[in-house]
Amino acid sequence: MKEFTTPGFRYDNGQLFILDQTLLPHRQEWLACCDVDSLVAIIKRLAIRGAPAIGITAAIMLALEAERGRSPDSLRREAKKLISSRPTAINLRNNISTILEAIDEDYPEHVIRVAEKLLEEERNSCLNIAQNGVPLLRKGMKILTHCHTGAIATAGRGTALGIIATAHEEYGDIFVWVDETRPLLQGGRLTAWECSELAIPHRIICDNMAGMLMAKKEIDLVLLGSDRIAANGDFANKIGTYSLAVLAKHHNIPFYVAAPESTVDPTCPTGAAIPIEERPPEEVKGVMTASANCMWAPDESPAFNPAFDITPRELVTGWILDTGLFTGQDLKRSNWWKGC
Amino acid sequence: MKEFTTPGFRYDNGQLFILDQTLLPHRQEWLACCDVDSLVAIIKRLAIRGAPAIGITAAIMLALEAERGRSPDSLRREAKKLISSRPTAINLRNNISTILEAIDEDYPEHVIRVAEKLLEEERNSCLNIAQNGVPLLRKGMKILTHCHTGAIATAGRGTALGIIATAHEEYGDIFVWVDETRPLLQGGRLTAWECSELAIPHRIICDNMAGMLMAKKEIDLVLLGSDRIAANGDFANKIGTYSLAVLAKHHNIPFYVAAPESTVDPTCPTGAAIPIEERPPEEVKGVMTASANCMWAPDESPAFNPAFDITPRELVTGWILDTGLFTGQDLKRSNWWKGC
Repeated sequence: MKEFTTPGFRYDNGQLFILDQTLLPHRQEWLACCDVDSLVAIIKRLAIRGAPAIGITAAIMLALEAERGRSPDSLRREAKKLISSRPTAINLRNNISTILEAIDEDYPEHVIRVAEKLLEEERNSCLNIAQNGVPLLRKGMKILTHCHTGAIATAGRGTALGIIATAHEEYGDIFVWVDETRPLLQGGRLTAWECSELAIPHRIICDNMAGMLMAKKEIDLVLLGSDRIAANGDFANKIGTYSLAVLAKHHNIPFYVAAPESTVDPTCPTGAAIPIEERPPEEVKGVMTASANCMWAPDESPAFNPAFDITPRELVTGWILDTGLFTGQDLKRSNWWKGC
Repeated sequence: MKEFTTPGFRYDNGQLFILDQTLLPHRQEWLACCDVDSLVAIIKRLAIRGAPAIGITAAIMLALEAERGRSPDSLRREAKKLISSRPTAINLRNNISTILEAIDEDYPEHVIRVAEKLLEEERNSCLNIAQNGVPLLRKGMKILTHCHTGAIATAGRGTALGIIATAHEEYGDIFVWVDETRPLLQGGRLTAWECSELAIPHRIICDNMAGMLMAKKEIDLVLLGSDRIAANGDFANKIGTYSLAVLAKHHNIPFYVAAPESTVDPTCPTGAAIPIEERPPEEVKGVMTASANCMWAPDESPAFNPAFDITPRELVTGWILDTGLFTGQDLKRSNWWKGC
C-alpha cells in the first residue's frame, strides 16, 4: 500500500498511525495501530471517531492485513470484528463490504487498490461536499454546529466543518457557535480546536443554550454531520441533533446535514431501522477525557447514555452530499441518490 | 432571632451556617456565614443557590446584622450589596425590600420578627406549592426536571422537586429524568443526590437527550422552577429551560413551572425586562465543582455563558404557585395573582 497522510491518520514505514482524539486539544499523540484488534479497541474508546474516518481506516487496515499475507477467509473474520465496533455509523459497514467484495479478484492486490481508491474517494468527497454546501452560506452568517465534523473525522477536510472552513476562506466572516456536545465533548474539544487552528471565529456553548440563541436571532443556519442516513432521508447523528432540529423548525432556521454518500444506507427504509449505540452511564455521570477525568454525580444515581438520536426528514431543510444538494422535493423521487 | 434548621441552612449558637452546595454530592460541609460580605461571596460562588433559599438567607442575615446593633442606615447599605449578588432571582430583591420596609418600626425587633415570618412563609409556601401541584401528577408518570428545585434550594421541601417528592410519597412510582444542567451541573449533582436521598427512582441524562426521550414518549410531563416570573407569565429559569419548553410544545407534553409567589415580579411586564446574568466563560470550557475541576476546551477558544433564559408564557401549560395553580386562561385576568 502506498504511504499517505491525512490530518487524523497516516500510513508510513509499514505502519498505520492514528491521532488520538481523546487527548485533544491539549496533547497531539499518534497511536501505532498494528492490527484489527488494535483498531477495534481504538474505535471503541473513540480515539478515532467520525463516521467517514472510522470507515476508511477500517478498509485500510483490512487491506494492510491482506498485504501482510492474511488469507481471504481470515480477513472476512477480521472484518466482522470491525463491523461491530460502532453499530450506528454506516460508512464502516459500507466500506468493509466494498473491501470484502474485492477479495475474489487478484488477492491481495485488488483489495489494496480498492482501499486506496476508497481513501481517494473519501478525500474527494469532502471537496465535493464543500462545493455543494458553500453556496448555502453567506458572509456574516452565524452557524451552529454540533459534535465534530472536521478534518480528523474524515480523510479530507471534513463534512459540515469542511463546508464552514471553505466558506470562511472564500467569503470570510463566518462565525461558528460550537455546541460542546455532551457527554464526550467532541464540540468543546475538537470542533473548537479545529476552528482555532483554522482561525475561524467561534464561541463554545453548552448544548442547552442553542434554543436561547435561536430566540435571540443569533443563529442563521444549523449545519452538522450524520452517522447514517436512511433511504427516506431520516438520519442518525450525535445525541442532541434531534433537539436542534426541533428548535430550528420552531424558529424557522434552515437545518442542513452534510455527509458523504457512503453515509446513506439504502437498506434502512426509515430512521426507525437504524440501531442506536448505548454507551456506559459513567460518561454521563462525569467527564472522561484524557485531560479531564472526574465524576460529579452521586455514585448511586443511574444514568442513560444513548450516543445518537434520529432526526426525521420533515425537520431537514437539505442534505448536502458529495453527489449533490438534495431537498425534501428530491426525496420524493425514487432515485434521489443512487441505490434508493 | 430564634434558632432554626432547614436542609440547606441553619441558625444556631448565634451563627448562620450554610450547606456548601458546591461540594455536594460527595461532601457535606457547612460554612459559617458571619456577615453580609461573607453571604455575598457565598451566593456569588453558588455555595448557596435556588431563588427562594438565597432570598430567605439574605433576609435572615440582614436581621442578624440588625440584632447585632448595626444602624438602620448601615443596614440599608448592606442590603444593596446583597441585591446585586444575583441579578436574575427576584426573591432576593423582594425579601430584602420587605426587610427594609420593616426598619422604620420598633428597630431592630420588628426586622427580626419580619425575617422569622418570611422564613415561616417560605416553608409554608413549599407545602402549598406541593398541594397545588400534586394533583397534576399520576402514579407511573415519568417527569423531566431541569436544574435543582429541592429542599436545599428553598427553606422547606422544594418547589418543583417538592411536588415530585410529595407525589412520590402519596402515589409511589414516580420516575424522574434528571437533566444534568450544564455548565454547573445542579441536576447531575444536586437533584440526583436529593432523589437518591428520597429514594425516588431517577436517571441522569445530558441536557441534549430530552428531545430524543420526548420523541420516544418517555416523558409525560416537564416540571421545573423559576428565578423570576414577569407579570404576563413569561419566566426566567436556568439556561436550557426555554429549549425544553419548545421541545415539550412540539411533542405536546405538559410543561409546568413551580415557584413561590415571591418569584413573581409585577414590575416586569414581560420576560424581556428580566436581566440575565452572564457568568464566566471558564464554566463552559470545563467543569468547576469542588469534586470535579478540569478544563477540556482549547485555551484560545472563547465561550458564552448565560446563566438563565426566558420562556414565553405561550409555551407554559401552567404556573404552580403557593397561592394556586394558574393557566393561560387565568393570565388573561388582570389579578391572576395579587399585585399584577
